Amino acid sequence: MTMNVFGYAAQSATDELTPFRFDRREPRPDDVVIEILYCGVCHSDLHMAHNDWGWSFYPLVPGHEIIGRVMAVGADVTRFKPEDHVGIGCMVDSCQHCPPCEQGLEQYCEAGSTLTYGSYDRHDQKPTYGGYSEKIVASEKFVVKIPGGLDLAGAAPLLCAGITTWSPLRHWKVGPGTRVAVVGLGGLGHMGLKLAKALGAEVTLFTRSPGKETDARRLGADRVVLSTDEAQMSAVKGRFDLIIDTVPNVHDINPYLPTLALSGTLVLVGYLGDLTPMLSSVPLILGRKSVAGSVIGGIAETQEMLDFCGQHGITSDIEIIQIQDINAAYQRMVKSDVKYRFVIDAASLKAQGV
Amino acid sequence: MTMNVFGYAAQSATDELTPFRFDRREPRPDDVVIEILYCGVCHSDLHMAHNDWGWSFYPLVPGHEIIGRVMAVGADVTRFKPEDHVGIGCMVDSCQHCPPCEQGLEQYCEAGSTLTYGSYDRHDQKPTYGGYSEKIVASEKFVVKIPGGLDLAGAAPLLCAGITTWSPLRHWKVGPGTRVAVVGLGGLGHMGLKLAKALGAEVTLFTRSPGKETDARRLGADRVVLSTDEAQMSAVKGRFDLIIDTVPNVHDINPYLPTLALSGTLVLVGYLGDLTPMLSSVPLILGRKSVAGSVIGGIAETQEMLDFCGQHGITSDIEIIQIQDINAAYQRMVKSDVKYRFVIDAASLKAQGV
Repeated sequence: MTMNVFGYAAQSATDELTPFRFDRREPRPDDVVIEILYCGVCHSDLHMAHNDWGWSFYPLVPGHEIIGRVMAVGADVTRFKPEDHVGIGCMVDSCQHCPPCEQGLEQYCEAGSTLTYGSYDRHDQKPTYGGYSEKIVASEKFVVKIPGGLDLAGAAPLLCAGITTWSPLRHWKVGPGTRVAVVGLGGLGHMGLKLAKALGAEVTLFTRSPGKETDARRLGADRVVLSTDEAQMSAVKGRFDLIIDTVPNVHDINPYLPTLALSGTLVLVGYLGDLTPMLSSVPLILGRKSVAGSVIGGIAETQEMLDFCGQHGITSDIEIIQIQDINAAYQRMVKSDVKYRFVIDAASLKAQGV
Repeated sequence: MTMNVFGYAAQSATDELTPFRFDRREPRPDDVVIEILYCGVCHSDLHMAHNDWGWSFYPLVPGHEIIGRVMAVGADVTRFKPEDHVGIGCMVDSCQHCPPCEQGLEQYCEAGSTLTYGSYDRHDQKPTYGGYSEKIVASEKFVVKIPGGLDLAGAAPLLCAGITTWSPLRHWKVGPGTRVAVVGLGGLGHMGLKLAKALGAEVTLFTRSPGKETDARRLGADRVVLSTDEAQMSAVKGRFDLIIDTVPNVHDINPYLPTLALSGTLVLVGYLGDLTPMLSSVPLILGRKSVAGSVIGGIAETQEMLDFCGQHGITSDIEIIQIQDINAAYQRMVKSDVKYRFVIDAASLKAQGV
């Protein structure tokens, strides 16, 4: 039987989010039915609601940093049982048999992974709706366990902001002895600082805002470099093995390349588009440096990251909001006025949805 | 005692190369005195002679693909003795104590390596003069052994064209099971094909010239892709672990990025400058791909490459010229009319220099 669910949706690219009732599918044998407890508010939610990338369709229920409690499981589900605390991130399905899927890198599925919202289910071709809602139904393959002891609201942003920084930290083998820099102190950046520090790296924040030093140090930065200050930039010349650039807008990455060590990598995780102004090959060639990209992370590495956060007591710094305040929250996000992630308390949906 | 040597030099950015006599330094205890037998003609020689990079000074004696015979050694020299066949590549010195130098990556010396010509010696501050000359004097640390059995003239281009492609092949761990593509079939490209094939990789050539197929296959390519043909480009989508881009001029690298496999790297080895048109971050992020650079190689890996070439009987395809024909050879190089490297027979210098 399908399940009628209350949520918030954008009805067009120009509408604010408003209450919306819709049906979740009848659970399949491999499905987990989840009561949503918290949902983080990612910058992508805002981009998708506004159709900034040109591929949104409506109604659109955003939300891909989902924490919930298992209500029921299908007959074939083996890893979850009712009452388990679980999470769902940016994906709810993928082809499962291409080389990236077979390596546990479903985010790079050659057939395209099914996104948690704004996508079409690959079995029934129906739209997927996200976590700004009471309940969700998803295949257990795309559900992760939340370690006991983690604050559930603070754990929500790990499902996108956490894994997006964790995946490159692991792929480029960050640990004790490596020097990592993070560009930008937002939702992604603050998780990058925490995770890199917990992995044992020396951690630096690049920021354009002089006011962020105290917070950055509290979050794990050993050093804060004002990227607008030439002397500070010169002082870190040739220093970093890995720079994670979390800036979501077009910006000049050339000034960061001299701060990479020999064979170092700058990895873009926030900005999709042309690299303007033009990237010069000179520092790449004369220092064997790389400019790379990375998107979210696979399901196995998401679980690995959550387990690591459980062991190290790492969650996101959050501000809890009611669903009724989502449009005001979006306006504050545009002004970067959030430290460092809004998380919707789904109890506010339940109260209104009755 | 200094040694008077006959060579060919550019006296200005607009002059042709003409006969030039100059002194080589009195050998230091760590120096090897070498009678030059062959010297390859690299595109850089032409750029430097014409001051295309803005840092040439004159007189300028080009040449950094040098093969010779040891005439004498300083008191501290342990690795060489008279009559040994030896090589000198692009560098003759470096600081020897920065982290890259300590890793054997003198080409990335933080203080700047001393180039074989067009540079200043770090001890006596005198100009360095290259291999278009009868003899050369250099520290044994920057002299490599030429394995017995290799054709000496064909081995000359290994010192620059060979090591420039070998170093990224090794750094990015190319071997059996990896898929490598080479962009451009010139001096560097033809060495890239030979070395990648001998390392056991599957090898593809990207070219804009339909006429190169037969030659490319003879040199080691399993496949030739006409980069101007969209169907051929689509057929290799997601295929390559490493693309070595040897094109020396500005060109659009965006069309090659979709042909990289997940986590693949395109490494620029030929073009120093802005990446025009602009590079897009989208394929980088959505496929965890990298754009990197690499320059020549360290002394230890140059020796490794030469030993590998000795074992596999690999030399460059060359056309031997007399020094008196060097200006005509430069004109042909500008038109890419060489398969695949000119090599000066230094006997022609000796005959004229008497």
